[in-house]
Amino acid sequence: MPGVGIIGYGYWGPNLARAVVEVDATALRAIADFSVAALERAGRRHPSARLLTDWRDLIADPAIDAVIIATPVSTHFDIALAALRAGKHVLVEKPMADSVAKASVLVDEAARRSLILMVDHTFIYTGAIRSIHDLIESGKLGDIYYYDSVRVNLGLFQRDVNVIWDLAAHDFAILDFLVKSRPVAISASAAAFLPNSPENMAHLSVYFDNGAMAHLNVNWMAPVKVRQTLIGGSRRMVIYDDMQTSEKVKVYDRGVELGEGGESLRERLISYRIGEMWAPAISGKEALLTEIEQFFHSIENASQPPSGGESGLRVVEMLAAATRSTSLRGQPMELGHLRNVS
Amino acid sequence: MPGVGIIGYGYWGPNLARAVVEVDATALRAIADFSVAALERAGRRHPSARLLTDWRDLIADPAIDAVIIATPVSTHFDIALAALRAGKHVLVEKPMADSVAKASVLVDEAARRSLILMVDHTFIYTGAIRSIHDLIESGKLGDIYYYDSVRVNLGLFQRDVNVIWDLAAHDFAILDFLVKSRPVAISASAAAFLPNSPENMAHLSVYFDNGAMAHLNVNWMAPVKVRQTLIGGSRRMVIYDDMQTSEKVKVYDRGVELGEGGESLRERLISYRIGEMWAPAISGKEALLTEIEQFFHSIENASQPPSGGESGLRVVEMLAAATRSTSLRGQPMELGHLRNVS
Amino acid sequence: MPGVGIIGYGYWGPNLARAVVEVDATALRAIADFSVAALERAGRRHPSARLLTDWRDLIADPAIDAVIIATPVSTHFDIALAALRAGKHVLVEKPMADSVAKASVLVDEAARRSLILMVDHTFIYTGAIRSIHDLIESGKLGDIYYYDSVRVNLGLFQRDVNVIWDLAAHDFAILDFLVKSRPVAISASAAAFLPNSPENMAHLSVYFDNGAMAHLNVNWMAPVKVRQTLIGGSRRMVIYDDMQTSEKVKVYDRGVELGEGGESLRERLISYRIGEMWAPAISGKEALLTEIEQFFHSIENASQPPSGGESGLRVVEMLAAATRSTSLRGQPMELGHLRNVS
Amino acid sequence: MPGVGIIGYGYWGPNLARAVVEVDATALRAIADFSVAALERAGRRHPSARLLTDWRDLIADPAIDAVIIATPVSTHFDIALAALRAGKHVLVEKPMADSVAKASVLVDEAARRSLILMVDHTFIYTGAIRSIHDLIESGKLGDIYYYDSVRVNLGLFQRDVNVIWDLAAHDFAILDFLVKSRPVAISASAAAFLPNSPENMAHLSVYFDNGAMAHLNVNWMAPVKVRQTLIGGSRRMVIYDDMQTSEKVKVYDRGVELGEGGESLRERLISYRIGEMWAPAISGKEALLTEIEQFFHSIENASQPPSGGESGLRVVEMLAAATRSTSLRGQPMELGHLRNVS
Repeated sequence: MPGVGIIGYGYWGPNLARAVVEVDATALRAIADFSVAALERAGRRHPSARLLTDWRDLIADPAIDAVIIATPVSTHFDIALAALRAGKHVLVEKPMADSVAKASVLVDEAARRSLILMVDHTFIYTGAIRSIHDLIESGKLGDIYYYDSVRVNLGLFQRDVNVIWDLAAHDFAILDFLVKSRPVAISASAAAFLPNSPENMAHLSVYFDNGAMAHLNVNWMAPVKVRQTLIGGSRRMVIYDDMQTSEKVKVYDRGVELGEGGESLRERLISYRIGEMWAPAISGKEALLTEIEQFFHSIENASQPPSGGESGLRVVEMLAAATRSTSLRGQPMELGHLRNVS
Repeated sequence: MPGVGIIGYGYWGPNLARAVVEVDATALRAIADFSVAALERAGRRHPSARLLTDWRDLIADPAIDAVIIATPVSTHFDIALAALRAGKHVLVEKPMADSVAKASVLVDEAARRSLILMVDHTFIYTGAIRSIHDLIESGKLGDIYYYDSVRVNLGLFQRDVNVIWDLAAHDFAILDFLVKSRPVAISASAAAFLPNSPENMAHLSVYFDNGAMAHLNVNWMAPVKVRQTLIGGSRRMVIYDDMQTSEKVKVYDRGVELGEGGESLRERLISYRIGEMWAPAISGKEALLTEIEQFFHSIENASQPPSGGESGLRVVEMLAAATRSTSLRGQPMELGHLRNVS
Repeated sequence: MPGVGIIGYGYWGPNLARAVVEVDATALRAIADFSVAALERAGRRHPSARLLTDWRDLIADPAIDAVIIATPVSTHFDIALAALRAGKHVLVEKPMADSVAKASVLVDEAARRSLILMVDHTFIYTGAIRSIHDLIESGKLGDIYYYDSVRVNLGLFQRDVNVIWDLAAHDFAILDFLVKSRPVAISASAAAFLPNSPENMAHLSVYFDNGAMAHLNVNWMAPVKVRQTLIGGSRRMVIYDDMQTSEKVKVYDRGVELGEGGESLRERLISYRIGEMWAPAISGKEALLTEIEQFFHSIENASQPPSGGESGLRVVEMLAAATRSTSLRGQPMELGHLRNVS
Repeated sequence: MPGVGIIGYGYWGPNLARAVVEVDATALRAIADFSVAALERAGRRHPSARLLTDWRDLIADPAIDAVIIATPVSTHFDIALAALRAGKHVLVEKPMADSVAKASVLVDEAARRSLILMVDHTFIYTGAIRSIHDLIESGKLGDIYYYDSVRVNLGLFQRDVNVIWDLAAHDFAILDFLVKSRPVAISASAAAFLPNSPENMAHLSVYFDNGAMAHLNVNWMAPVKVRQTLIGGSRRMVIYDDMQTSEKVKVYDRGVELGEGGESLRERLISYRIGEMWAPAISGKEALLTEIEQFFHSIENASQPPSGGESGLRVVEMLAAATRSTSLRGQPMELGHLRNVS
């Protein structure tokens, strides 16, 4: 097992530390945070870990093979780059960085040094998304026509990033994992309803090269919490409702079919297929454990994880493109040319 | 009561005929349809009505004061214009016409002749929308920040119009009725998943002059039927779920508030208000009856109905702008300059 | 096709008449009702049917082979007996009669004359109950442990029967159709919350000879309408929710299993199986049409329908036993000895 | 603050220990459990507490003013009695004891010594039940007609008590807290579907002296988890759904009213009132904290808590009566005479 150091012990860091220990009780070697109070909390829970106020000391520690970064987004780049240059594998909280250029540098650095660079896109390690992935791979859904997600709730307003970088990041990572076709453009609209605050509501449309579409509805100012995604395939359709305690994924044997006949649609019969629905049994294993296991497995086997640096870069590209589109009232932004630009 | 003639006795015409008779059993004078089978059905239900195969004969009938048009969209303009020129009041199925120019001509013609021109935007005569309208007018919701609607189901694919002209027309009429601020631009994306068929899925973002936003998600190819709208106000928020058999409208005393303090958001406290929810008692009266009563009332009092020609024109403007934006991958279309253009 | 006469054209009779005509437009020969207004309504819809104010005239009509009775419960016995004695097949609204003795006489009379006697227990002709029946017959649910039904709503208070004879009659018929084991006793509690009115809330427990149990919760005074039944089997469990517009029947691959081991439960491992859920596609055909087709089929083939007289008698036995138990605060009433008593 | 000792550190004990510390970090003095492993866990979380393997030593500790008992039901009586005799206040897990006679002895002992005896009926300290209690006290519901609860799920099978003593105990405590009228009899049915195991499904009907009724449906073998209670009042009705994350309590302004008129129901008009629904804002404070605060408050003020010994005794009376009725297939058991019997 690799020796692991965690940088950042605020909101999410304690969960990562707990997960590392659950996967391997001996793996956690050090925790760094500039807050003394945070380090005290860390020490009570993990008495055998080194406690450091400067993350540079953690990176300098030769007992550390891999660094997990759970600090604010604006600091991801500096810390991750330093860790990679010190020869450490890196798992960094989402989003990987706050610009395409920075994300790109990290990917290149990890590639040059043959180190694992992984992003903490937790959703793709959940039983639900794994199950949908399997449905798609098996061909049961047919061609994917669309992915339509609603991810809204009341709060928690972020102060340093807008709702796109906070919530749409989840869906972009899921899309990158599930959909094989290539996104080519994004059009997005957004609004901020509190003065001098980042955008808190946004709608994003993603165009794929094969005609498929994705749409994301993200909002910090909705009366209720909704986490629901419709996925339309040519053979079957899925409703993924993450607020359900069971049956999170429902597969509908439903669709539309064109009958034989003339050239034009008017001359052909449209029929609606309404078959059974089923909800596959889904693993209840905590996603964070699966993710840490994947990180360790990737390190040991020098294999790319599903949420590796390339994937994290593509997510950042989409976040940046979407944000730019919102400032132009939905003007479409092409994807795939941004990487070396900004 | 005005003498009424109905043109078009296919899918929706029989409902209109029944509603007219329920409001006033003597009002229905004539029914026109080019299909002999349709006229036979009409005759069995309404034995005292004249049955005509040519709508021109109906318009020429001096016993007819008002014409209700329930024919395909592409025919609305010719029939409505002829009816207005013959001095008849007109109630026309939604959308009013298939272009802004045509809709504009109808509005001008009706205005010149001081005739009532009304569009069959049934939703704004429902108890639910009436109830939301009253909530807004009373100030209970505060400023309206957003209107976010999902209107999806499996089928019924239309062959002559796309999903925007079919389903988004409902939301545009509701928006026109509920929201007092002015829409200034629309960005929309759409896709067609059946070959040679009109777009069956679309997402539309509407920008208002005061910073409010509306978003419409319309889809003929969803596994389940959803008719749900979130309305966010500065004081309260609403969920309107038309699939519920009771409690269609829920009002949430919830919101976000900024505390006093420094200039920047970082220095001010954000607090979340989570108060009670209530579902007002809603009139169960059939919307179509209220609508026909409104039509008669407008004729008798020479007063403009809520879904009058001007409103119907604004709806068509939005439909046309949205459709154009979809062909440019979300490029925003300005509103308000289209009226004389088409 | 048999010639059919309908007696009683109040609330339910028009539906039966329409269903007869939909199954065979020529089958409906006569309609009897003592109300002239009801007969006028009947005449407008069914101009070719004889209209009679005295049901005895209908029964005397040699063109009538089968009589459908949709009159108040207290009149079922006299009319059905007269019809059977006149050699007519009979379909009677539920419940078949208001006492076990009367129901028993009807069954004997029909048997002696080899006539079809059928009860209008509509639920067992629905797609949902048919689907559950098939699941049970196929062995997919395993042994049936329990049937637990909630059938509550606000109103409609009946004035001549209590909530048991109104609502529990449905569940008893469904039980008789689905469950092969024999009910041996009933314990029931009830209350009337309006003065001088029949009981409007009741809970009924049915004991079966193999240890299975059924429970029925019926209530005219609930704030919302619920129609939900849990069915527990040794292999799978079902939730049947009749208020859903789709997925009315859900099958859960869930259960409890005892591991190998010692004699006592304490020494053996209990494990919980949580597998997939699925909702079979269900026929959307109107139950009343299937029921009328069954009636005609039974007449033509001299075969017993699923809701034949014997089944209807068993339902009445259970209704009578339950009502008696309620007057003794749940004292259990044995079943199977009542038939020749009262 | 009283010095507190906790006996039993298995499943529920750790929660009680945490709650004591959250209410007052200095209150927890000692923890007893015969399992060394359990004590080690306790020591890590509560390093300043004495750790004891014999509960008698804890009771003998003069630094302990109050004892919290979280051991198996069969041991409650011996431990609680010893604690009371040693002059300690007692908070005991539900149910208070496994027989009416034992519960009665505890109540008498506490009364003789003027000690607080309280039962851990956590539900009555939840925001939801508090809110319903206030609705009833304020008269907003009118007279309470019925309480109808469904408390079913898959597992967790208990080995030493049946489903009544496990789950119905919650509802009996809630009933004792909410309903002022006196329960006079219970009729119950039950079944065990696993061999040699306690009953895992039961239905209980409770008769009150004023005609009100309660019904409890408890089941360890249901496909889904349901925690739903309908409460019918003469003025309003409530649905309490504990599985909801928000809006757990909904109040419906609905009911049935009898018009003026003749003596008999037949001659009087029944009307249905369907008004608004509202969901009050409910405190999200953890019930266990409120409960511990209440325990401390009762000790300091020598005041009876809502879930005091008398209430706990009445719950045990109902549990015992219900279990006896199940062995006689629902034969009703009178309440109020049992206290000195068994």
